[in-house]
Amino acid sequence: MRVRVSPSAQNMNPQTTFDLATPALVIDCDALEQNLSAMSARHPGSKLRPHTKAHKCTEIARAQTKHGHTNFTCATPREIIGMAAAGVGSDFLLANEVLDARRLTALADVAKDMRVTIAVDSIETINAAVSAGLRDVLIDVNVGLPRCGVAPELAGQLADTARKADLTVRGVMGYEGHLMMVSSDEKRQQRVAESMLSLVRAAQDVGGEIISAGGTGTWNLHDNTGINELQAGSYALMDTQYAQLKLPFVQACFVVGTVISRSKDWLVIDVGLKSLSTDHGNPSVDGYDVLFCSDEHTTLVRKKDSGLPLANIGDKLFVLPSHIDPTMAMHSEAWVTRGEKILDCWKIDLRGW
Amino acid sequence: MRVRVSPSAQNMNPQTTFDLATPALVIDCDALEQNLSAMSARHPGSKLRPHTKAHKCTEIARAQTKHGHTNFTCATPREIIGMAAAGVGSDFLLANEVLDARRLTALADVAKDMRVTIAVDSIETINAAVSAGLRDVLIDVNVGLPRCGVAPELAGQLADTARKADLTVRGVMGYEGHLMMVSSDEKRQQRVAESMLSLVRAAQDVGGEIISAGGTGTWNLHDNTGINELQAGSYALMDTQYAQLKLPFVQACFVVGTVISRSKDWLVIDVGLKSLSTDHGNPSVDGYDVLFCSDEHTTLVRKKDSGLPLANIGDKLFVLPSHIDPTMAMHSEAWVTRGEKILDCWKIDLRGW
Repeated sequence: MRVRVSPSAQNMNPQTTFDLATPALVIDCDALEQNLSAMSARHPGSKLRPHTKAHKCTEIARAQTKHGHTNFTCATPREIIGMAAAGVGSDFLLANEVLDARRLTALADVAKDMRVTIAVDSIETINAAVSAGLRDVLIDVNVGLPRCGVAPELAGQLADTARKADLTVRGVMGYEGHLMMVSSDEKRQQRVAESMLSLVRAAQDVGGEIISAGGTGTWNLHDNTGINELQAGSYALMDTQYAQLKLPFVQACFVVGTVISRSKDWLVIDVGLKSLSTDHGNPSVDGYDVLFCSDEHTTLVRKKDSGLPLANIGDKLFVLPSHIDPTMAMHSEAWVTRGEKILDCWKIDLRGW
Repeated sequence: MRVRVSPSAQNMNPQTTFDLATPALVIDCDALEQNLSAMSARHPGSKLRPHTKAHKCTEIARAQTKHGHTNFTCATPREIIGMAAAGVGSDFLLANEVLDARRLTALADVAKDMRVTIAVDSIETINAAVSAGLRDVLIDVNVGLPRCGVAPELAGQLADTARKADLTVRGVMGYEGHLMMVSSDEKRQQRVAESMLSLVRAAQDVGGEIISAGGTGTWNLHDNTGINELQAGSYALMDTQYAQLKLPFVQACFVVGTVISRSKDWLVIDVGLKSLSTDHGNPSVDGYDVLFCSDEHTTLVRKKDSGLPLANIGDKLFVLPSHIDPTMAMHSEAWVTRGEKILDCWKIDLRGW
């Protein structure tokens, strides 16, 4: 006994955000444009290597190319393979260590037509690149975040090893992720400068032309650090954590939910842990405090100073995620809007690995 | 310039867990069977209405039917539509409030061949059910968790409203989610008894034959509460949060990662916030402490008392999620294993809404 899925189950052809089946990811196209413009004004062309891991969407990457950026940072082979297949971008950096022979071989296929550079931080990752037939690498240098990257003092030696294996060493990268949320501007600036000093010294030992680093939280702190490309990603869509830094980027991405239940003390919307990530704290909804998120729900209580009337069952509410990257990875599509009007639907087509 | 995706990029035909492209979700089939057996021994047949939201996988649901359960709990229309299309289960409860006319109409299509009952807790949800052509409802009663459900004292009145609208009221449901993690067994038992007292009183006002409640954390506390079906879901695969309760269910689901980087002080694996959920705390890895999780990575330091040697770059490590439900929703497939051997690949085919 097989049951057909009625086409009416699909989110067929919504005209406005009120028509959306929820939870639904929404991108405000004007806010996105504003963010892309603000970034490309300061870091034009190849000065920015936008990170696709923050959105996993070739249409957003395409918008970034229209702002002059054709070199991209990626976190997974899937992101590079998908970008290349979509014809978006021409120079890809896998800013991550990958050992998987099959995926690296697929990247070597892409590298026949486009430039593909991968980060290495060990003999093992160098050997994996060589075996797969890849040619271009960056030496990933640890600049203080306890994650990937070779110790700065060993970077030159690793570059020699890579060159002996006939790899082209294009330079270095380092990600000062531990400094993104240092709350004092002055302290953040100072610590970024210190961190980049170790990267630039490593770059002298390594050789090559690229010194790649940075993110949205340090986007304006690299004028004198010596890096020549910034790897920011979250700036395009933003989230409430980065909003704490008072950057010139605005919230461009929301999860729309429907009020499905209402008691005298709280509302429940159909947005939960499966449609947004809470690793950077609870999401935000204008006029409400979040009591808690569960798998399919978020319970909201009205802020004491809210002048807004309590929403009704069936009303749509816009939820701001606290962390954009893993939130994007939970959705297969995003609705592109201007005000209430829906203009387009973009696939989040770079998910997976 | 379009680039074809090489088939070698796919996780083609892995024979053992060592062959898996990572991150990869793995289900230990013997552990799963052990959990299903332990639960069905205590709650046979229709005494259990397994919750599909915990796994979103029709193959796991099929295994649950082999243990005698054919009535299922679902959190989304998609779960019911997918289960019905796969021919798994025959009586579905949407234990959640849904206002979406298109999805409810799709459920009414399913209800032509199978029994579909939906939870209602308001006039609005009753009206939505009627408009879509659905006939069977349960009154969702709030039993203490600040989420969905009508106040117990209003349940009878809402049932009358539903019946006047020609709906069949099959009974009540209530979810004591706020009590799942009460750490003292005695206190948990006592508070569940109190909570269910309000549900059973509401059931008397409502009428109908079903009194549905409970979850994995209260699976053995309902002998005398008066409920006649349990809605547990996490018991099948488990996670580290539920493991704190010393239940007779074992860990049956892992995310396998590869060590991609190693310094003298830590390891980095390619499992992060996009492949497991951390809303119930960091995941666990045998022999290691988790320093932190980021989008694509988890940094591990060796436990002081670990007798194990530090893993090497390229080694596979098994990561235990702290919260199974949102973790499952991040993966499109799970590899079914016995020891190191891979027996099957199951689609996580009930994702989405």
